[in-house]
Amino acid sequence: MAAAYVPSLDLVPRVAAGQTGAVARLISRAESGTPEARPALAEIYRRAGGAHVIGITGVPGSGKSTLVARFAQMLRARGSKLGIVAVDPSSPFSGGSILGDRVRMVELATDPGVYIRSMATRGAMGGMARAALDAVDILDVAGFDTIIIETVGVGQDEVEIARASHTTVVVSAPGLGDEIQAIKAGILEIADIHVVSKCDRSDANRTITDLKSMLTLGALTSGKTDWAVPVVGLSSLSGEGFEEFADKIAAHRRVAFETASGRARQAGIARFRLEKTAENLLLERFAKDAERLAPSLAERLLRRDGDPYTLATEMLDSPAEKERAHEHV
Amino acid sequence: MAAAYVPSLDLVPRVAAGQTGAVARLISRAESGTPEARPALAEIYRRAGGAHVIGITGVPGSGKSTLVARFAQMLRARGSKLGIVAVDPSSPFSGGSILGDRVRMVELATDPGVYIRSMATRGAMGGMARAALDAVDILDVAGFDTIIIETVGVGQDEVEIARASHTTVVVSAPGLGDEIQAIKAGILEIADIHVVSKCDRSDANRTITDLKSMLTLGALTSGKTDWAVPVVGLSSLSGEGFEEFADKIAAHRRVAFETASGRARQAGIARFRLEKTAENLLLERFAKDAERLAPSLAERLLRRDGDPYTLATEMLDSPAEKERAHEHV
Repeated sequence: MAAAYVPSLDLVPRVAAGQTGAVARLISRAESGTPEARPALAEIYRRAGGAHVIGITGVPGSGKSTLVARFAQMLRARGSKLGIVAVDPSSPFSGGSILGDRVRMVELATDPGVYIRSMATRGAMGGMARAALDAVDILDVAGFDTIIIETVGVGQDEVEIARASHTTVVVSAPGLGDEIQAIKAGILEIADIHVVSKCDRSDANRTITDLKSMLTLGALTSGKTDWAVPVVGLSSLSGEGFEEFADKIAAHRRVAFETASGRARQAGIARFRLEKTAENLLLERFAKDAERLAPSLAERLLRRDGDPYTLATEMLDSPAEKERAHEHV
Repeated sequence: MAAAYVPSLDLVPRVAAGQTGAVARLISRAESGTPEARPALAEIYRRAGGAHVIGITGVPGSGKSTLVARFAQMLRARGSKLGIVAVDPSSPFSGGSILGDRVRMVELATDPGVYIRSMATRGAMGGMARAALDAVDILDVAGFDTIIIETVGVGQDEVEIARASHTTVVVSAPGLGDEIQAIKAGILEIADIHVVSKCDRSDANRTITDLKSMLTLGALTSGKTDWAVPVVGLSSLSGEGFEEFADKIAAHRRVAFETASGRARQAGIARFRLEKTAENLLLERFAKDAERLAPSLAERLLRRDGDPYTLATEMLDSPAEKERAHEHV
């Protein structure tokens, strides 16, 4: 017999009591976007806000996941309870998320002081950011004092999610190819802390020097006050640099919680979150009409009896769509 | 003195005459999403549809760009006029696109039979897919018979754009790291043609064998009829495999244009395009109110006087928003 359905609101006290089964269920409901979960997520939001949220991002191959695993062990040794939200790419067809990085985290997975959750990136209608930030709040309320959001540093949504944290870490590896470096260039500015991984390698110093030069030239520090962005070399093999990294994280936590720039950052995140949620709800409302109207309009588009703009406008301005816009959903 | 502004509709005959200056200007206007360009883009769409559109995608480091450059030279030698639309990640702050891959294409850039355009991925309100497909149409009308859309194989939008083509090529490289392979797993199913790059390397055979096994097991072929997905090994160094690759592309062109499955694919793309355009227009209309309402609501969110869902719903159901939904914009 399947377990009985527990209403989402009833899950909230269980989440607050740290029950991981309730945490898992409520995150799944946030991810699916079911309206039934919204009052529960509203209550979660009201109670959340205490945890230190750390966004860690880097291109594939940067050694980001190995770093997260080792850093997690270190935080545990320091007594933190740690949540990890991994935003992974997944199949456009299966809708499922893949394991990948998390294989390295298996040793952490059996530790009750660590909760690891992988989110599918293919949420309906751009809901990934909304769902990931709901997951962070759920973990916060469940008593995890530090929460890492790990995202791949490619793709607009993925980068924005990494920014929606108190402290953003960008991981660079020495000696990646041109293509990867070019992509990485787009995410360097969001770092509060730069990490160069694999610093046991001989070419790591060059990468560290390059980043420091860019910082000195002011190329990467736009808008950052109260904080000098550091570059930390790490070796997940030898453990070199991890103490310094943890110290920088702790120092930036104070900036995030206690300074004007930290408060301004939080205001920016609140706005980002509000707008993402509104866009998500808007597209969700629209999807019902789209489902009905799209087949015939797409058929006309295929025949070139109309163009994308004209037919999309017809879709938006259909009488049913206007009628719907008048109702509270 | 700055050049006079040419109305977008007046650019259409110039585009059709193959004037690259007009092509560049109209693509920029499509990218910016300016409503002034819409009648012109509607006219472009009506005239387009003849070119063979090839989506090429692969994770960073897969050798995709080198492959595109060499394949482009080959198509030129066969007499094609070739357009390349490169969808590149770019900074969340600058909004500009970066050069990266295209450095390798410099030798092609002086060839009048090749038009290369890099698109910023940070289009306003999810407009990247819309703008990229508009760019394809513009190049089509300008007389380019083959158009390559190159996207990085990470990120939902990027993968969807690669699918919105007649023929989708997924590039895999031998010996990439675990993290990269895991990400790649999410894009393997979209391939009409698999390419394994760097097949001069000893570990390439393993990658080719793995892909063939997955295909034999039926793991990657969902929904593909009229076509057996091939795996082609390529070496951009020696040129090995490029003849076979070009033959497979030509063979799949026939499938795309002349079979029931090709027509079904085109119907799916039309629907994707219609919905993306409608979503883009919807968010654009909404953005005007969001700009006005967001600051005070975000402030309440920051104070936790309300949660994301409740405040976002207030935003959507504001009287001004309802009023707006009644007007044709």
